[in-house]
Amino acid sequence: MFERPVYIERRQQLMKAVGSGLVLLTGNEDSSMNYKDNIYHFRQDSSFLYFTGIDRPNLFFLLDIDNNTETLFGNDLTIEEMVWTGYVAPLAEPAAACGISDVKPVSALPSLLERARQRSQQVHYLPPYRPETILKLEEWLSTPAVLLQENASVPLIKAIVAQRSIKSDAEIAEIEKGVNTTNRMQLKAMELAAEGITEYAIAGQLQGLAVSEGGQLSFPTILTVNGQYLHNHAGPTVLRNGQMVLCDCGAETAMHYAGDLTRTFPVSGSFTPKQKEVYKIVLAAYEAAVAFMKPGVLFRDVHFEACEQLVKGLQALGLMKGDVKEAVAQGAHALFFQCGLGHMLGMDVHDMENLGEAYVGYTDTLKKSTQFGLKSLRLGRALEPGFVVTVEPGLYFVPELIQAWEAEGKHTSFINYAKAKDYFDFGGIRIEDDYLVTSAGSRLLGEGLIRKPGF
Amino acid sequence: MFERPVYIERRQQLMKAVGSGLVLLTGNEDSSMNYKDNIYHFRQDSSFLYFTGIDRPNLFFLLDIDNNTETLFGNDLTIEEMVWTGYVAPLAEPAAACGISDVKPVSALPSLLERARQRSQQVHYLPPYRPETILKLEEWLSTPAVLLQENASVPLIKAIVAQRSIKSDAEIAEIEKGVNTTNRMQLKAMELAAEGITEYAIAGQLQGLAVSEGGQLSFPTILTVNGQYLHNHAGPTVLRNGQMVLCDCGAETAMHYAGDLTRTFPVSGSFTPKQKEVYKIVLAAYEAAVAFMKPGVLFRDVHFEACEQLVKGLQALGLMKGDVKEAVAQGAHALFFQCGLGHMLGMDVHDMENLGEAYVGYTDTLKKSTQFGLKSLRLGRALEPGFVVTVEPGLYFVPELIQAWEAEGKHTSFINYAKAKDYFDFGGIRIEDDYLVTSAGSRLLGEGLIRKPGF
Ligand SMILES: [Mn+2]
Ligand SMILES: [Mn+2]
Repeated sequence: MFERPVYIERRQQLMKAVGSGLVLLTGNEDSSMNYKDNIYHFRQDSSFLYFTGIDRPNLFFLLDIDNNTETLFGNDLTIEEMVWTGYVAPLAEPAAACGISDVKPVSALPSLLERARQRSQQVHYLPPYRPETILKLEEWLSTPAVLLQENASVPLIKAIVAQRSIKSDAEIAEIEKGVNTTNRMQLKAMELAAEGITEYAIAGQLQGLAVSEGGQLSFPTILTVNGQYLHNHAGPTVLRNGQMVLCDCGAETAMHYAGDLTRTFPVSGSFTPKQKEVYKIVLAAYEAAVAFMKPGVLFRDVHFEACEQLVKGLQALGLMKGDVKEAVAQGAHALFFQCGLGHMLGMDVHDMENLGEAYVGYTDTLKKSTQFGLKSLRLGRALEPGFVVTVEPGLYFVPELIQAWEAEGKHTSFINYAKAKDYFDFGGIRIEDDYLVTSAGSRLLGEGLIRKPGF
Repeated sequence: MFERPVYIERRQQLMKAVGSGLVLLTGNEDSSMNYKDNIYHFRQDSSFLYFTGIDRPNLFFLLDIDNNTETLFGNDLTIEEMVWTGYVAPLAEPAAACGISDVKPVSALPSLLERARQRSQQVHYLPPYRPETILKLEEWLSTPAVLLQENASVPLIKAIVAQRSIKSDAEIAEIEKGVNTTNRMQLKAMELAAEGITEYAIAGQLQGLAVSEGGQLSFPTILTVNGQYLHNHAGPTVLRNGQMVLCDCGAETAMHYAGDLTRTFPVSGSFTPKQKEVYKIVLAAYEAAVAFMKPGVLFRDVHFEACEQLVKGLQALGLMKGDVKEAVAQGAHALFFQCGLGHMLGMDVHDMENLGEAYVGYTDTLKKSTQFGLKSLRLGRALEPGFVVTVEPGLYFVPELIQAWEAEGKHTSFINYAKAKDYFDFGGIRIEDDYLVTSAGSRLLGEGLIRKPGF
């Protein structure tokens, strides 16, 4: 946890921004694997953590803005329960540590929400993303599951996005801790990769490293010789010399801040000339994007800058042709770069994704495109100092997609389909780092990781 | 997956046992961590796996006994989706591999269930343990969440318990694979344990090992110097010489069969004389229990046999007194052994726990006790050849519990509370192995693991 005043100030700022009504923040529960009591590691809701710092399951926080009261709802364990779990401090202790003095059992919450409904006091809540939260809100707010998403509070979402988008120095330090663990995971992957080892043998070691440093993975590790598939997880595939490993992984610190890095490196230790050619294009796009980032610039334009670099490189290889800007405007490059350049990073690896990309990555006036490729750009809006973002250009040769586009005759004026066949067994390359937007431009987070492995 | 005939035969046996109506088996979905698309590793429902072998999310299986038809419900991915996930074979392929020829989209299921309801055809389903399953069944069966548990099908539960309780040779081989990985995890824990290292640094390495071998943990690792708490997970505590580490961990194989072993060993490499004394008592209870196991014997009686050994040992230490059998009958020993001797093991580490202990561990005539200690014995019924069970006696000195019992004056004729105070900082010791019940008695599963570390 951070110091008490941090949480008190965050909640005061939230109350001011939302203005009136009640704010209900739902903590997460334990998630069951194959029976109720066999659980995945607990992951608290990030907004709940942001405003309370309390990392325990089955808690609910109610902030009554109209009456200026704050209550934490949760149940203490009995001695018999602690025979199983070990000693757990009464909830009043962590509540006090974040400045909340009123603690009640969960059973007291439904009637309070019912009373609020009776006096037409608005209950602001966030869109639920876990089924257990949906089940609870259905009952407590007398709202059918299908309406819970659309009835979520836009003022609350906007207020939280405004606060969580700007990272404090203490938060940046935590993110850098996550990035540095992720650096060590990447180096371990490079060290272990060799002819004959399986993808999951490496991925297991990376997960072990993240957990050993007191955290968890910030997302399921993507570690694959089939890097053309964007989120292909590690599997039983055996590595062979000549192949490239795409490793996209991240550690989450004990305080739940994420790192997220990608490196692509050769199994044998050295890239082939053809691999090196493509790698250099991705690297040029990465460097152009980083140089382009500064406050006030739309991240969508940083994305376009990277796309143009990719197209230029693909033209040099004979894979694309025609006007560069026009190719990007029409989305032809998305055949080889099907996703966005990056996303916000914080407590969530795609920070605040549960609050909705329309609010996190876009604004009332800048809306997300529906064009293939651009519709997967999670962040489009103008950069501000204090934003933490990933920069992750890539080139991905997906035979199924190339064949489908060719069959449909898509973008034939920009794409050289005959040449594309030479890359059907190429795979994919991505380079990803995490940056803080500063008043001067941007700063790489963490100690830095080799960006030209295998050269 | 096993061979096709295995699944066909399992389903035929199930149809015969249930007799009539529809059987609905719900596969699991992906579970979200901090936003919808950031997921824990997928864990399929074990009964769904048992009857289909298909290890993918969002599937439902419907067996119409009355009309002798089988349908698998699930949706195939589009090419655009596979740009993200990598190639995923059409569902018809794994369906064929387990002998199911009829595959339909999930959207076709609700109307079929509705039609069954209209013609009063019974829909047998298992008690749901995940909230997403509850949400779906609520809607599809028009049954409110509160009634879903009690309306679950007892004939279906009993039929599945009867089948899954008896392990085939192929299943035993898989369990042994899980046990052998678990052996390696235990050896790694012993190797890493040393003054100055944290609990989670070791636990992370064990998890890494399980994942590296292609599986997962079968349950969250219990690795603690506070072994008196039965399910105390690894934390930031730093190990010190003089302490004991209780490590209760398990690997789950790629086919989702579990190992589950516990060893307690000294941080320094050697037990103190006092630790050795208590360890020998637990070991004697373990050996007595193993010798007692054979077909026809109630596991509850194996539990009592172990308890009596523990009481004898505790009497020798001056911690207990009075008639041994009477102490056990009254549950006085449960102050130091608060749980049961073991449980079934299979695809679930507490096998079939989601089907209900009343059916898995007990029978219509042998009911579970409500006495403290005995109520935590998950398995009581008569052993049969083919059962796989854990044997895990222990002694746990929980100061909070000892003080509570003393204050209540509980079992003062059996417990020497004055002496118990000498053990307030002792911790806990558990020894656990996995056994197959054979016609002759029982057989230790796996290659065997040192049972007297630190002697
Ligand atoms: Mn990323
Ligand atoms: Mn066990």
